[in-house]
Amino acid sequence: MSEQYAPGRADYADFVRRIFDGAPFVQDLGIELVTAEPGTIESRLHVLRRHCQQDGYLHAGVAATIADHGAGAAAATLMPVGKVVLTVEFKLNLLRPGLGDTLRCRSRVLKAGRTLCVAESEVFMTGDIERLIAKATVTLAYVDEPRSP
Amino acid sequence: MSEQYAPGRADYADFVRRIFDGAPFVQDLGIELVTAEPGTIESRLHVLRRHCQQDGYLHAGVAATIADHGAGAAAATLMPVGKVVLTVEFKLNLLRPGLGDTLRCRSRVLKAGRTLCVAESEVFMTGDIERLIAKATVTLAYVDEPRSP
Amino acid sequence: MSEQYAPGRADYADFVRRIFDGAPFVQDLGIELVTAEPGTIESRLHVLRRHCQQDGYLHAGVAATIADHGAGAAAATLMPVGKVVLTVEFKLNLLRPGLGDTLRCRSRVLKAGRTLCVAESEVFMTGDIERLIAKATVTLAYVDEPRSP
Amino acid sequence: MSEQYAPGRADYADFVRRIFDGAPFVQDLGIELVTAEPGTIESRLHVLRRHCQQDGYLHAGVAATIADHGAGAAAATLMPVGKVVLTVEFKLNLLRPGLGDTLRCRSRVLKAGRTLCVAESEVFMTGDIERLIAKATVTLAYVDEPRSP
Repeated sequence: MSEQYAPGRADYADFVRRIFDGAPFVQDLGIELVTAEPGTIESRLHVLRRHCQQDGYLHAGVAATIADHGAGAAAATLMPVGKVVLTVEFKLNLLRPGLGDTLRCRSRVLKAGRTLCVAESEVFMTGDIERLIAKATVTLAYVDEPRSP
Repeated sequence: MSEQYAPGRADYADFVRRIFDGAPFVQDLGIELVTAEPGTIESRLHVLRRHCQQDGYLHAGVAATIADHGAGAAAATLMPVGKVVLTVEFKLNLLRPGLGDTLRCRSRVLKAGRTLCVAESEVFMTGDIERLIAKATVTLAYVDEPRSP
Repeated sequence: MSEQYAPGRADYADFVRRIFDGAPFVQDLGIELVTAEPGTIESRLHVLRRHCQQDGYLHAGVAATIADHGAGAAAATLMPVGKVVLTVEFKLNLLRPGLGDTLRCRSRVLKAGRTLCVAESEVFMTGDIERLIAKATVTLAYVDEPRSP
Repeated sequence: MSEQYAPGRADYADFVRRIFDGAPFVQDLGIELVTAEPGTIESRLHVLRRHCQQDGYLHAGVAATIADHGAGAAAATLMPVGKVVLTVEFKLNLLRPGLGDTLRCRSRVLKAGRTLCVAESEVFMTGDIERLIAKATVTLAYVDEPRSP
């Protein structure tokens, strides 16, 4: 089931790093890029109280953010120079309550077309053991890079 | 198409306020509750640079957070005392690029059952004019309130 | 919330009729087009035993089919000549058990872009009264019409 | 990533067979059960012209039906006696145009809780080669078996 992908640009690893380092919301939350391969990304978050909802569980919005951003970065590894990636839609299932201290997200491209890409993200939480707590499917569009003024 | 709902508890408005005030992630982002009626919630966010992704647009994770949280709060207006609400899954379509300074989210219950509730959130961005930028469908579960230790 | 749309082609009503009459699966099930306006479609199905699942409820696949096809047709009212519509993805929530004799589906475009369109379908079942039993969000792509050989 | 599941009832294989044989819509379409293991199901459809949409591709509703039904059957392998399975919602991504003669669907449970189950279906089309053409995530509820009158 796992496909082999060719990178969309020679400097795909740097490009993906900029997608993490250059995204204020991702920096603000503390989400880090761990590894980037063509079509696959791993990211991580040290979970703090400020990431939680009113009953002490991880907020679904945090799981959504790491899942969406990772999927976008996985899609970006396959894009040619001059394109950027935008989320068209995503769907997230929360499978277990989010309790633990480290979130790990594994994102991979399911299908990359000319203008659209579909990727999946699996979100794991580590407490005593590591468990799959959420899974997302993300549809992304490849669009022309906005020009600098 | 709009249904009339009876509140699930007499103090539903206070209960919903606690869902906003007591959620660290929602406070951290700056999302505010505007109005709460049985089955309907409105919330708001003053958009800052820290809410954006790498190309200057609102991060999809922020739209997801306000949409999910608002839907959960709308569901919570209909819940009896002793229950809390957990997101089972949600799906978000991003309809227009998120550029502007104020995000407004209108969430409403589509169907409330005994253990599950389906709600929708419409997310609007105000720049020069207000436009619908995202729409979400959220499935929520009513679960027993966690006991204090 | 309801937007005004200009039709994508002068003969949009005939074009939509062909999308129903020319689709073998839709004909086989018995789904009929009721009305077509720019951006909005209504369709209908007389529910038979053969549309049901193992416990006597409408099969989710039938609700999915009418919701997807109606959304595609609604999107098609806004397309220029030479384009056809393909479903990229959809999400369907089943809100009530499907019991009754007539299914009515109201589909409308939420946002039409240059290459993508997002539409919603509301599926109602009439037994003693008419009730919303399902709601879908559908993402569609406008692609070039396949050439005849 | 693949979990080991215990069957929910001793006669799970017969139970799943009845979910296929006893569902009029599934019989009408021609969908067959191939294999059933605890948490995993495989099903198949010989694609005919009547399963297609107006441009000759497999109708998305057919992919949705096999994906939803297979996911429900996979969930049913884990259910105790006295319960039946109902679809709460599903989301389907269409990854490639559906052209070919045999559809194969592999469904597996991602997470089974007490009242809810999340399953995935991968839909493959065989023409010259076999390719993944669609992927679905399905949320299901375990509900009490309807009593016979």
